[in-house]
Formats: sequence, structure tokens, C-alpha cells
Amino acid sequence: MEFSEYFPVWDNMTPQQQQAVSASLVSRSVKKGALLHNGGADCTGLLLIKTGQLRAFILSKEGREVTLYRLFDRDICLFSASCILRSIQFDVAISAEKDTQLWIIPPDVYRQLMEQSACVANYTNEIMASRFSEVMWLMEQVMWNSMDKRVAAFLLEEASIQAADRLPITHESIANHLGTHREVVTRVLRYLQNEGMVRLARGTVELTDRAKLEALGGK
Amino acid sequence: MEFSEYFPVWDNMTPQQQQAVSASLVSRSVKKGALLHNGGADCTGLLLIKTGQLRAFILSKEGREVTLYRLFDRDICLFSASCILRSIQFDVAISAEKDTQLWIIPPDVYRQLMEQSACVANYTNEIMASRFSEVMWLMEQVMWNSMDKRVAAFLLEEASIQAADRLPITHESIANHLGTHREVVTRVLRYLQNEGMVRLARGTVELTDRAKLEALGGK
Repeated sequence: MEFSEYFPVWDNMTPQQQQAVSASLVSRSVKKGALLHNGGADCTGLLLIKTGQLRAFILSKEGREVTLYRLFDRDICLFSASCILRSIQFDVAISAEKDTQLWIIPPDVYRQLMEQSACVANYTNEIMASRFSEVMWLMEQVMWNSMDKRVAAFLLEEASIQAADRLPITHESIANHLGTHREVVTRVLRYLQNEGMVRLARGTVELTDRAKLEALGGK
Repeated sequence: MEFSEYFPVWDNMTPQQQQAVSASLVSRSVKKGALLHNGGADCTGLLLIKTGQLRAFILSKEGREVTLYRLFDRDICLFSASCILRSIQFDVAISAEKDTQLWIIPPDVYRQLMEQSACVANYTNEIMASRFSEVMWLMEQVMWNSMDKRVAAFLLEEASIQAADRLPITHESIANHLGTHREVVTRVLRYLQNEGMVRLARGTVELTDRAKLEALGGK
């Protein structure tokens, strides 16, 4: 599969624009766990995922994390090229949750492309609006939902991403996704276990009653 | 002052595009307190503020509110025209915090303009990135900061917007900005009063030690 088949507005670009992108494109493999991008100091470029899974998250000064969204096959990561838009004034970190194959479009090449092509600029707009929507969903979760609902929603999402009911995940890691402390997650998980929704074992959480979890944390 | 002087990319538009916008433009006055836009069902159009102040906020099912950001003179409100971008999948409400004079650009006119002009599309991108940055700032506040820091930051922002140290504002209203309960705000304000940072009276909060408030809630 070629880049042109992954980039949705390829056919709307001129041959010159296609050539500029092709010539500057970098193909890269990253291992699970790798940090691809770390906040505003970096301007790596746009990432287009061939296969794999990336996680975008924010970090507090004290090292606490919260997951903003995930990126999957064919998704584009815009915030790894935040220097192309001067109004982006926040820092996002990007790490690989699976071994990932991706392309990098250098920021200066993409910026030029956006300036030349209304189609590419509008496509970029749609990408940003998608990420904005995910962050707003998270904001509503954080503002209005209690932690038991958020843990239930997180477990359902994980089970869907991993296509499995038995998740190899620690309480610490769930806390890092949700921006809370391990002790809080442990308390919530024990409550969910008492209610028959999950079964806990060392290093795993198994979903045992999806319907009940969905009633609690469903979108 | 004319619309052309308020719209930053006016000079980059063709005469035909300028004419299309001028012909469709609606000028409107809204009273303080008016609800201009209410979530996804509405697609009012782009709002460009001549003078005044708008507030963008989200609402929970139970009627709790949280302020996302404010818009002032010359600001543009994009989410009142969320139908122009299909990837915007969240609902924002917009109300007037002061008597406001504004122009409305109809959504179909603006969408066409974005499709034709890379410059307008990129300008729209910058607007969205600005709002995204404000929401991310709020997200960090909510995730990492305790309520005393958030109330201090809110009071400093209000004092700056109103250019006054004595704010005519109720505890209920502060709670609605921050997405919490009145009782929580009252408790925090009493703590701030004990620490000498504010003085409370019926319907007003007076900032009495800005330096201390800034040390607590400053950006």
C-alpha cells in the first residue's frame, strides 16, 4: 500500500504538490512504548499511521498523565506538527501503544501545502475538529461523571480496542489514562468487582458483565 | 467601522467573495443575558463581535454549566456554525455577558468561502486552534488543579475582564462558570477570605490581595 492510498486528499493535489510530499516523506517504524513526540519543543511533523496505535496525552508538572485520545490505522496526528499553526498553545505528548508503522510529513512541507490548497487546509480543519470533539467528550466525562463511570467507560473502550474481555492492564496504568491516582482506581475496581462487572487478578482486569458496565459508563 | 476592517482576511478575498459576504451579512444587537446559540441543533452562522462579550459553555443533563471561554471585541465564534465542519461532534451554548453588537455570516456562505479560499480555510484553522488551546488550558486546570486554585484563577480573570477589584458576582454564578456546586464555591471563598485574599459581601467578591491570589492561581 502506498502513501497516496492513505492520504484522503491526495487526488485533490496538483502533480507538483504530490511530488513535493513524496520527495520529503519519511517512513518509520517505532516500537511499542516509544515516545514519538514530547510537547511544544518538538515539531516532528504530521504522522500518518499505516498500522499500529498511538496515544496522545498530557502531563502535569508532577508527572501525572491523562489520555486525550488514541490514533489507529489511517489516522493522522496533527499535534506532532503543532508549529504549523501558531494558535496551538498547548503541549501534547505522543507515544506508541503498539509497534507502529508510519509516515512523517515534514512540518514546512505540510504548511506550504495548506497555504496552497484550500482542500488540504479544510481537510486539516476536519482533523482538528475530530480531535477537538474527542477532547470535549473527555471534558464532559471529567466534569460531569464520577470516577466509577469513567473507569467503566475506559474498560469498555479498551475491550473494544483490544477485541478482548480479559485486559492485561495494571491499576497504575488505568490511573495514568484517567489522570487520577492508583488508589482511586483500585477502590473503583473493587466496587465494580463486588457488583459483578469485572474480575480482578494480578495484572489483569476481566470484563464479566458488559451490559452492566455499559449501563454505568456507556456513551 | 465596517465589517471589512474587522475581518482579518478580507483583503485576501476576491471581489466576488467580498460581495457574497457583504450581501449575506446580518448585523444584530443582543441584550446581556440572551442565549445566542444552543448546541448542535442550531447552526446560526459565524459570529463576529463588534463590541460586547460572549460566553461559550457546556451544559450537563442535570443543568450544570462550565464556561469554556469568553469572546470579546473582534473575536469570531466558530462553534455557532458547527454545521460547517462535520467533524465537530459536540454541543456548545453561547450567551451574551454584555449587550453585544455583532455580525452573522450565514453558514452556507462561509462554507463556500472556505472551500474556495485556502487563506480563509487556514484562518478558520487558526480560530479553531485558539479555542482548542483555551479548552486544553481548562482541561489542565480541571485535571491538575484543586478548586481553590481554580476559584483564584477565575477571580483574577474576572477582575481583568471587568477592570475592577470589586466584582458583582454570586457564588452560584461562579459555580456555573467552574462546573461545580455553590456550596463548594462558598467554602473556597471563605477560605480565601480567611487568608486575606478576598472580602465577601452580599452579591460581591472584592479582591484584596492580588499578589497572593496570583501565587495561588496564576497561569
